[in-house]
Parts: sequence; structure tokens; C-alpha cells
Amino acid sequence: VTSLADQLFAAPLGDFRRAARRIRGDAIVSPLLKLDYTGLKAECLQPMGSFKVRGAANAIASLPASLLENGIVTASAGNFAQGLALAARRRGLAITVHAPDTAATSKIASLDQLGATIVTHDFAGWWRILSTREAGGAGHFIHPVAEAGVILGNGSIALEIMRQDPDIETVFVPIGGGGLCAGIALAFRAAGRRVRIIGCEIETSTPLAQARAAGQPVEVDRGPSWVDGIGGRRVLDDMWPLLNTLVDDVVVVSTADAEAAFCRLAREAHLVVEGAGAVAFAAASAAPTSWGRSVAVLSGGNIDAAVIARLMTKSA
Amino acid sequence: VTSLADQLFAAPLGDFRRAARRIRGDAIVSPLLKLDYTGLKAECLQPMGSFKVRGAANAIASLPASLLENGIVTASAGNFAQGLALAARRRGLAITVHAPDTAATSKIASLDQLGATIVTHDFAGWWRILSTREAGGAGHFIHPVAEAGVILGNGSIALEIMRQDPDIETVFVPIGGGGLCAGIALAFRAAGRRVRIIGCEIETSTPLAQARAAGQPVEVDRGPSWVDGIGGRRVLDDMWPLLNTLVDDVVVVSTADAEAAFCRLAREAHLVVEGAGAVAFAAASAAPTSWGRSVAVLSGGNIDAAVIARLMTKSA
Repeated sequence: VTSLADQLFAAPLGDFRRAARRIRGDAIVSPLLKLDYTGLKAECLQPMGSFKVRGAANAIASLPASLLENGIVTASAGNFAQGLALAARRRGLAITVHAPDTAATSKIASLDQLGATIVTHDFAGWWRILSTREAGGAGHFIHPVAEAGVILGNGSIALEIMRQDPDIETVFVPIGGGGLCAGIALAFRAAGRRVRIIGCEIETSTPLAQARAAGQPVEVDRGPSWVDGIGGRRVLDDMWPLLNTLVDDVVVVSTADAEAAFCRLAREAHLVVEGAGAVAFAAASAAPTSWGRSVAVLSGGNIDAAVIARLMTKSA
Repeated sequence: VTSLADQLFAAPLGDFRRAARRIRGDAIVSPLLKLDYTGLKAECLQPMGSFKVRGAANAIASLPASLLENGIVTASAGNFAQGLALAARRRGLAITVHAPDTAATSKIASLDQLGATIVTHDFAGWWRILSTREAGGAGHFIHPVAEAGVILGNGSIALEIMRQDPDIETVFVPIGGGGLCAGIALAFRAAGRRVRIIGCEIETSTPLAQARAAGQPVEVDRGPSWVDGIGGRRVLDDMWPLLNTLVDDVVVVSTADAEAAFCRLAREAHLVVEGAGAVAFAAASAAPTSWGRSVAVLSGGNIDAAVIARLMTKSA
């Protein structure tokens, strides 16, 4: 069996172009805005508030009809499940979401509104489904990160950036599962475009920085933070060969800098971003000028009103 | 002398198209997003954070070089001056801004950074310049509202909406000086497109609603409000013939509804808007379904961090 990494390294530009075409009705061409000298790829403006709808929609749209008969299934608590539920509803497909019982009530309610069937599990049970892709039902399982269709769909962001600003030299991408970063980097490669790919992490959780230091994924601490879209305990084994090859450098951002970045984006770019997006902008706006024309991928905008209130109060 | 209204009523579609072409390097094609069933024309994402850059840039770009020799002059304290200063800088032109001494320090600092010469006046003196267009200097005066080039530039928003969603039936526009509303309405007319134009006001200041009731501009009270981009003491005489003809209806929004609209836009559309934009969305989202497919023009996003903090704290 070809590994996910080998399969994706071999993907020609046409695969990314087809993905972009498939998701035209699901995702917007997000604007590439500017704040001072930094480009802002505003994925927070996507339907359901994050880039996840791109990969989710492409994963569904690239499956043969025979695999969709019993609907689709995923294990996710957050943005990916929402994007997948939206894409499924557009296509009249049933969807089951397996979520940990720690998931925010608001996210569960939103999935319910989109017509998803939700099954909750204790964290260990949920993690088992995510790791084994065995959910016990009849539907077709789509993994939120380590899934070729998802990563190809994420690559559509890079195709848009190439059109919107052909002179981009450096792209700052927040590292969650790594699928956003991998998709963007692979699409630039497939197009023969050499850009510097910078993975961005928050100081409270640095699995990629530490995997790079160790030469392999390692278990890391995860401190509490309002930045919840990124950082995990360990880089996924399936993703490591991709991230190890595709990421040129990792920038670790302090909580204070992420907060300041959030407030600058709200006040000066008029965008509400989630922590991961703030981290990417913080990294980009502090980057060496020798890295040239840059863009920060503002991955999403789903953040609690209470957090917005707290950060803006501090900055006012 | 042809009146401003007569001049603009006679403007063919080509005038709006030329305006749109002239400002391509100044303004973005703002995305037409969606929240529930309401379109959101996100002008808060423009350079300097408001639609004003469109009219400002077009006003400059449509002047013959001979009139630009001594630079340009305006009387404005806010978004228009910023848009004009940005457009002037791009073209290497000197700009003088006459501002009331009540203008926010932050706005003056931002104009200074853009290279504008700032002259402050007591309010009466500033108002005199705005009314007479006599600033005493050598530069060419551009009025922030009642100016053909400015209104034609604002019309570029309508051209974009027609392309982005050809089925729009109703457009909700906040009423400040009225130039945004007039430009959009005139461009739809010039294109032969019948849409319903709804002027949106905040309950603390309703000059257009009262002018319509009285059949002519009347002096109105202006209560204190965090919504500061719209509402004045009286519809400008030059603008009344335009607004009287072009506006199909006026919706007056309560402060509570405007606050709720601000918070929904931040949480669900991930946009920070100024009060005027919140008013337009509040009006649109409460509109009768018989008015059909609608768009709210989110005029700008310049709002104090303290106000964001206060509104989000209330809603959290």
C-alpha cells in the first residue's frame, strides 16, 4: 500500500486544480488582504468559519457514488465536522459525527442544526475511532487530517494565493494536525513554485518544533491556552514524513504576541480570527525582512465571545 | 449650472464603469459573504477600513492633471480623509485635511502617518469650510459627500454586487451623508436594474426618515450613541433630491438591535464592523421575506477597541 505521504508527493498540479473546481460551491475564494506588509489569507470568512470546509468538501466530492450510499462518518469535535456536515448537506448525504464528550455544547448544537447524527464517546473511545478509523457503522469514514482528499482540498488555498499575489515568497501556516500546512506546501511544489513554508506554533504546545529537534514525533506537554485550534500532544505518524519534508522552519509564538496579533487583526484588518490565525499573523509580522513578501494563513474565526471580550478589554 | 443631482441622474453606466476601473489599485473587490439569508458586502475589509477609499480615489483620479498641481484639500475628520490621503499618497500628491478640533487623536495621527498636512479649526470654522468649499489655500477642494466623483466611485460597489449575486432584490445601506446610498442606487439604475434601496438609520438620529416625513430636510436631534458613522443633524440640501428619489424606504434600527447585530457579525461572520455597518445588517436581517434576496452594505470597520470590548462583554 502506498503511504499517504508517497501518494501526496506524487500528486500532480491537476489533482489540486480538480479539487479547487470540485469545491467551488462549498468554499469562497477568500480575499488576500494586507496589514502593513503582511498578506492575510482570510480563511476565517469561509462558510462555518474555517478553511476546513475546503478539505471536507473535496474529500466527499472525490469519492465514487458507491462509497457514499451509506452516508459518511468522521471523528472530530470542531471545525472539520462542521465543514463536512455543511458539504454533506449540500449533497443530500447523511453524516455521522463521532465526538468526544468534552466537545463544546455550542459546537454540538451547530452540528445538530446542520442535520448531523452525533455520537459522543469518552475521550479514549473517541481517540480510538480517530486512530483506527473504525467507527462500527456502515458509512464511509473520512479522517479530519490524514486523508488525501482533505489535504488536496486544503491545497486550493495555495492555488488562490498564486493568482492573488504571484510574488509571495514565504507562507506562514498554523500547525494543527498539519493538513493545512501540507496541502498548501504540496500545491506550491506541484506548481513548481518555490516558497518558504513556515509552520507556526504557540509556546504552550510545540509538537512540530520538538519533532524536528528529535528527528521524529515525540510526546509533548500541552499547557492551557486560549489558542485552541493548534498544538497537540504529538505529530501524527502519517503526517510526519510530509511535515518533515515540506516545512522549512518552525516559529514558536508567545501567548502575549498571539494576543496582540488578535487585537491588531480586529482593530486594523477588521477580522475576528481564532487563536491559530493570530499565531500565524504574529509569526509573519515579526519575520525577518529577508524572507520577503509574505502571507499569513488566517485559518479560521471560531472563537468564544468571552475570549474576544477579554482580549479586547486588555488591549483597549 | 447643472445641479449635483441632475448631473448624477444623467450619468450613464459607462461613468460608473470608468470609476471602477480607475480605483482598481486603490480598493479591493470586497467579498459578498453570507450570514443566514443575508448577503454581507464587506467594505470593512477595504484599505483604511471603509468604502470611502472608493469615492476618494475616483474623485482624485477623474480630475485633470492641471487641477492637481497644487495638491488636494478636503474637510473631513474621519474615514473619508483617510481614504483620500491614501489615494493621494499612491499618486504622489500633496493633501491638506481640514479637521474639527473635536476629531479623535487616533484619526489625526493616522492622517499624519499617511503624509497629510492637517489644519484644525473650531467646529463652526470647520463647518464653514465644509459648507462653502472655501479653505483659503491653493489646492483643489474635494467634498467628502456631495461630489460627483465621490458618488460615482461609491457606485462601484453596486457593479460588484451585480456580478457577485445577480439576483439581489433589496440593498440595505446605512445613511451618513448619503453618498454611499446615492452612488449604489444610481449605479443600479444606470444598469437598468430595479432593486429596492433601503436607507438605514439608528434611532438616536433619523434625519432621512424625518426629511421624508416632512417632504424636505429638517433639523433633527442627535442623541449620544456608539454608532457614529451615520446620523447627522440634517440631510444636506445637495443630497436631498438624490435621496428623496432613490431611497425606497427607511428602516430605523434600535440601539439594542444594532448591538446584537455587531456581535453576530463578529461571532458568526468573523467581521468587525463600525456602527453603521451593524445598523445595515440589523435592518436586513429583520426585513420582510417578501423583500427577497438582500444584501447589507457593511460600510466600514473603524471602531474603538473599548467599544468592541464593551459590546462583546455584554453578549458573552
